[in-house]
Formats: sequence, structure tokens, C-alpha cells
Amino acid sequence: MEQQEIFVKMALHAWNVQVGRVDKFLSDLSHDDYFKEIAPGKNRIIYLLGHLTAINDNMIVLFALGNRSFAQLDEAFVKKPDKSGEELPSPDIVKNHWVKSNAELTSYFNKMPYSDWFTKHTIMSDEDFVKEPTRNKLSVLLNRTNHIAYRLGQMVLIKS
Amino acid sequence: MEQQEIFVKMALHAWNVQVGRVDKFLSDLSHDDYFKEIAPGKNRIIYLLGHLTAINDNMIVLFALGNRSFAQLDEAFVKKPDKSGEELPSPDIVKNHWVKSNAELTSYFNKMPYSDWFTKHTIMSDEDFVKEPTRNKLSVLLNRTNHIAYRLGQMVLIKS
Repeated sequence: MEQQEIFVKMALHAWNVQVGRVDKFLSDLSHDDYFKEIAPGKNRIIYLLGHLTAINDNMIVLFALGNRSFAQLDEAFVKKPDKSGEELPSPDIVKNHWVKSNAELTSYFNKMPYSDWFTKHTIMSDEDFVKEPTRNKLSVLLNRTNHIAYRLGQMVLIKS
Repeated sequence: MEQQEIFVKMALHAWNVQVGRVDKFLSDLSHDDYFKEIAPGKNRIIYLLGHLTAINDNMIVLFALGNRSFAQLDEAFVKKPDKSGEELPSPDIVKNHWVKSNAELTSYFNKMPYSDWFTKHTIMSDEDFVKEPTRNKLSVLLNRTNHIAYRLGQMVLIKS
């Protein structure tokens, strides 16, 4: 296996592990569970799931892969905190978006040549990238993977 | 920069980001904060910090770098759950272990040749590694980085 291929596969594996853990967590949630707070006064499950979906969906733009599919989630799940009064979609819809977004991202990721992961993302200048070649698309994926782990650590707290 | 160097620097950067976030979180904790539960009936901060230290310390053995420095934490912080009745060291000592362990790991990591990260870890057989070359030392580091993020997501919940 080429070096680039090994590293991309490692990073995608780590990504898929975290997504899979969220899927498993969701698999036995009831409708009411989505409205439970992870701790008293803190975010609810529905908010964290919509938040993750919106943040991950944005990689499509960061990696110049196409147009975002779930930009409509930004208003309620990124720009505003939970319980802002903003109307949220139902748990079924948010879960459906999460699943669809991951399928879409996986499809995009699988089509990316390995070398493309080591190129700069769209919000970085050419000059900065020359100085810091480690700030590439794959580093964004590593960061988003940690973000899922961070939020999953919170979501699991509603289970006894 | 060589490919291997870029990969290793990306993974170490992601690691350092998570460790730095925990350090920042700890920087303004009071003695009493260490005994707060992240949510009612769940783990306390002191337990999660000792747990992270013990799990990370074990990389020294997994990577065949030397002998562990904090194996004595395993009994109370890995083998047993929080509030098991096991006596815990004081918050000062646990925090000190966390800081020392990270300094030690960083020192080891900085001495590892880049190519060494792409070799198998000690609990993997040669046969398995031929089949799955992505299960190398660097993949363990990615996994441990996600583990810190997961626990940090929980620890921050004690802040209002």
C-alpha cells in the first residue's frame, strides 16, 4: 500500500468508527430521548445531532466537492444555541439528515484521489499552505472526527 | 516535507490540540471541582482525569518505548468504575500525573523516527499486520486522541 493510501485509510477508518458509534447510540433511542438534556440545563440530543450534521456537511464546501445538502440546519443548530426558541425539525427528520449526510460524505470521500486529501482546504490561502502543509483536507477530517467523539461523549450521558 | 513526516505531524498536532484543551479546562478548576460529577450519578472529574492518564500512559508499552510510569493508576481508574470505594490520590497528585505523563509521552514521541509510527504495535501479530497495515502505532494515537475528546466533552459539562 502506498503511504498516502495508508494514511487516508487510517483517517477514514477513525472517522467511520465515530460515525458508527453515533449510529449505534441512535439505534435504540425513543422519540422522547431526543428531547433529553445531556446534563441539567445543557444541550439536548436533537440539538447535538443536528449540530454534528451541519458541521460535517460543511466539509463539502471546505473540500470543494460540491454544494452543501444541509445548510438549512445552520440557523438552528450552529448559529443559535439549543433552546433558543428557533423551531427544530422532528427527531425523525434530524436523524434522517444525519444518515443521509454520512452516506453522501462517504460517497464523496471514496471518490477523492488519495493525493487530494493532502491539498489545502478552501478557507486557507496559498501562502499559508506553503508554510504549513499539515493544514490540509485530511487534517480537517481528523478535527471533525474528534468533534464527533466530543459530542458523542456528551450524548451517551442520557443512558443509565 | 516528506509524506511520512506530514502524516505524523498532523496526528501529533491533533493530539496536542486535545491535550491542550484538557490543560486549559484544568487551569481554573478548584479542588472541589474535581469531585463534581459530569452529570447526576455519572463519573467525577478526578476519575476521568486519572482514567485518561492511565490509558495514555499505556502507549509506552504498546509502542515498545519503555516501562510505564503510571501503571499504579490502572486499579482505581481503569479496572474499577468511579466511586467503587477504591481510595483515589488527591486532585493535586492526579493533575500532576496528567501533566508529567504528557511531558513524558511528548518526549518519547519526538524521539520516534517518522517511519516507526507506521510499524505495528505490540499487541498485534505479524500476520494481522500484513493484512491490515493501517493498524499501526499512528492509528493508536488517532484513537487515543478521540478518546481524550470524548472525555473532554464530558468534563466541560461541570462548567456553567
